[in-house]
Amino acid sequence: MEGNIIKLIKNPQRRYWKSILRSERESLNELTEKSVRKIINDVRENGDSAIIKYEKLFDNFVTTKSGLSVSAKEFRDAAAQISPELADAIKTAAANIKKFHKAQKIKDIEVETSPGVTCRQKSVPINHVGLYIPGGTAPLFSTVIMLAVPAKLAGCREITLCTPVKENGRVAPEILYSASLCGIDKVFKIGGAVAIAAMAYGTSTVPKADKIFGPGNGYVTAAKKIVSSDACSIDMPAGPSEVMIIADETAVPKFVCADFLSQLEHGQDSEAVLLTTSEKLAGEVLEEFKKQSVKLSRSEYINGSARKSKIILLPTYEKMVDMANEYAPEHLIICTKNYGTLVDKITNAGSIFLGNYSPESAGDYASGTNHTLPTSGWAKSCSGVNLSSFLKRITIQEITRKGLEGLAPAIEVMAEAEGLGAHKNAVAVRMESKNE
Amino acid sequence: MEGNIIKLIKNPQRRYWKSILRSERESLNELTEKSVRKIINDVRENGDSAIIKYEKLFDNFVTTKSGLSVSAKEFRDAAAQISPELADAIKTAAANIKKFHKAQKIKDIEVETSPGVTCRQKSVPINHVGLYIPGGTAPLFSTVIMLAVPAKLAGCREITLCTPVKENGRVAPEILYSASLCGIDKVFKIGGAVAIAAMAYGTSTVPKADKIFGPGNGYVTAAKKIVSSDACSIDMPAGPSEVMIIADETAVPKFVCADFLSQLEHGQDSEAVLLTTSEKLAGEVLEEFKKQSVKLSRSEYINGSARKSKIILLPTYEKMVDMANEYAPEHLIICTKNYGTLVDKITNAGSIFLGNYSPESAGDYASGTNHTLPTSGWAKSCSGVNLSSFLKRITIQEITRKGLEGLAPAIEVMAEAEGLGAHKNAVAVRMESKNE
Repeated sequence: MEGNIIKLIKNPQRRYWKSILRSERESLNELTEKSVRKIINDVRENGDSAIIKYEKLFDNFVTTKSGLSVSAKEFRDAAAQISPELADAIKTAAANIKKFHKAQKIKDIEVETSPGVTCRQKSVPINHVGLYIPGGTAPLFSTVIMLAVPAKLAGCREITLCTPVKENGRVAPEILYSASLCGIDKVFKIGGAVAIAAMAYGTSTVPKADKIFGPGNGYVTAAKKIVSSDACSIDMPAGPSEVMIIADETAVPKFVCADFLSQLEHGQDSEAVLLTTSEKLAGEVLEEFKKQSVKLSRSEYINGSARKSKIILLPTYEKMVDMANEYAPEHLIICTKNYGTLVDKITNAGSIFLGNYSPESAGDYASGTNHTLPTSGWAKSCSGVNLSSFLKRITIQEITRKGLEGLAPAIEVMAEAEGLGAHKNAVAVRMESKNE
Repeated sequence: MEGNIIKLIKNPQRRYWKSILRSERESLNELTEKSVRKIINDVRENGDSAIIKYEKLFDNFVTTKSGLSVSAKEFRDAAAQISPELADAIKTAAANIKKFHKAQKIKDIEVETSPGVTCRQKSVPINHVGLYIPGGTAPLFSTVIMLAVPAKLAGCREITLCTPVKENGRVAPEILYSASLCGIDKVFKIGGAVAIAAMAYGTSTVPKADKIFGPGNGYVTAAKKIVSSDACSIDMPAGPSEVMIIADETAVPKFVCADFLSQLEHGQDSEAVLLTTSEKLAGEVLEEFKKQSVKLSRSEYINGSARKSKIILLPTYEKMVDMANEYAPEHLIICTKNYGTLVDKITNAGSIFLGNYSPESAGDYASGTNHTLPTSGWAKSCSGVNLSSFLKRITIQEITRKGLEGLAPAIEVMAEAEGLGAHKNAVAVRMESKNE
């Protein structure tokens, strides 16, 4: 019998934490970057004709300009192919996601900071957002809901969606059904970096987006990074998916292992880390791993990603919390008797799952939280996608003459100290004036 | 007499708007990028010794490791050099900024999306932020307040500030006074791209930041862009400052011109655009320009930037609003009789100034709004710096066994349709279990 492929590490000293946990974020692969830049420039210069060329080249999809858009008939055909069970499931998920994201609305504010000086902050939808949904091994229609529901709630005026075709030249019906349910009718059959370029710069068929959302492979990630430097915003930096689990002896080994495995099936580069104070639990999870993993379909991914994953024994709850905050996991599951107090100490995480009956897959699909989350430690500074990802805030000031009189000395003295005479002058000409 | 250096454009057709308004955003200059990358890699690998080397090379500042930190004595000396008037002005500005940013606090939310399924969203401060304050022609102490006040309000645990030294090897007293007033005592004498690299990767002297804020020249901007791809977040993409003014015949030409000029003095690459329905006003503003500009000190900047600036005559209020939304100005001043209704139609702008007594310099210093704002059209998708720029949002779900029973069919059907068997399994093992 071969040994466990999951590493077990006991009480590592703090100075080794960084090297034990995830490896450093990679910068863009130079070769990938070069080829993606070429594609982007081509789409930027040649628009639809470049898209049509690449669709043939990459996806074996021969099409015309009008064939890039999903037709009303294709939407109807897709809806007819969805089983009632799946339709119900998607509706349940969308309803929960809508409920939670609707509660995230923030009120506009108005404050009189000094007499006659009124400052306001208003939230305004980003006019046009572009959503990218990968095809790959399976149609990620759950991501359609995760992005489209808050975009609609925010009030974005134009929402477009790009996704690659399947072998039959059609878009997966689950994707079209989900898009339609969320009120999106502009779907384009464009995949990968080509889609990102099309939305970033716009073509005669694809409208230009102000911000692009959605996951993808290395090419998509590279393309999003590149266009975000000059063309439009992006949701967040992307990396391989990951989970960290904090568990003590009250956790159920079978459940912990199942959560571990559900992360590993995402891809060879996925990562799962279990922190526990219980050596007994660690052993039981490893036993469970042998039992459960053989029953699962995506074992080629699981065997790969399991090698990067680890179980770390730590002496105290405090150390587990510290390590979680150091790692800043995309997903954090806390299965301990005192999870209610531990969660308040977590400062770096994308989304947190509490107790024995909150598996990551609940949040991936249907609990109501968003599954587009910061990976690779970006949770230290970034939020997952939420309602405000589709809004921007504008500040407004309205100052009366009296109000400006009150501020004038401060503005004039500061402008002078910064050597900005014209800034001072803009106040001075008003104060000298007899107008009211 | 030479003609007006400010271009006057009458009723341009919509299809020419884009080319009349700002030129396309530039990608990074390749040469700048290459030299900045070299500096970043050097600081990343060699830490403080690389910083010390560059401080001598770029700023003629010969120092040791401990000399990089501003000492308590230097803080005291700085405070003693600030005039009572300036101290008062800075306190007034800080108080207004604090009042407005405090009102931006958002409440944590909790929603039961389905029976037994509780979702929460909590705001958590970014642990460590780094602020960059340029030296350049004048000490931008106003930016210290604009960044430090919300960082403190948000509750960031560690706030560090880097700024270049003056010729005497000291930091401008206004910067130290402002930092100290805001409760920042970790100030490092490091300038430009070197400072950005130091904060992004950390050295034995400078702590690593999770997010870097602050303006700077082309090298600083390039460095922020580069480190944001693998090391830490940044506040926003930066570009030259700009103002758009919407005015009708009720505007005061003298005031409009003064605001126009206060933008132009920022630098040769600054830009000001006046939209007006009144040809009379346009002419009067041009006349005022000749009078006011000769009295100002920074004429070398003003003469340069005036050449890029323009006055555009438009037939209706609606067209002015449309053009403003197309341009998405960093600063937007609206001086029309109906500014109260026009402002509600503005969807793209950084900060808006209403009426005849709300000059841009009020917001630059003391009204309470933030002056770190999106330029170059980024206001279409980005907000200016605000309280939430220093926070991230974490979602939390807590599901009871009953709650998961309710969600289970939806999760299982969706996971199966996406081909993710282990995701389905994580729910199935829980539903099969007798545990409670």
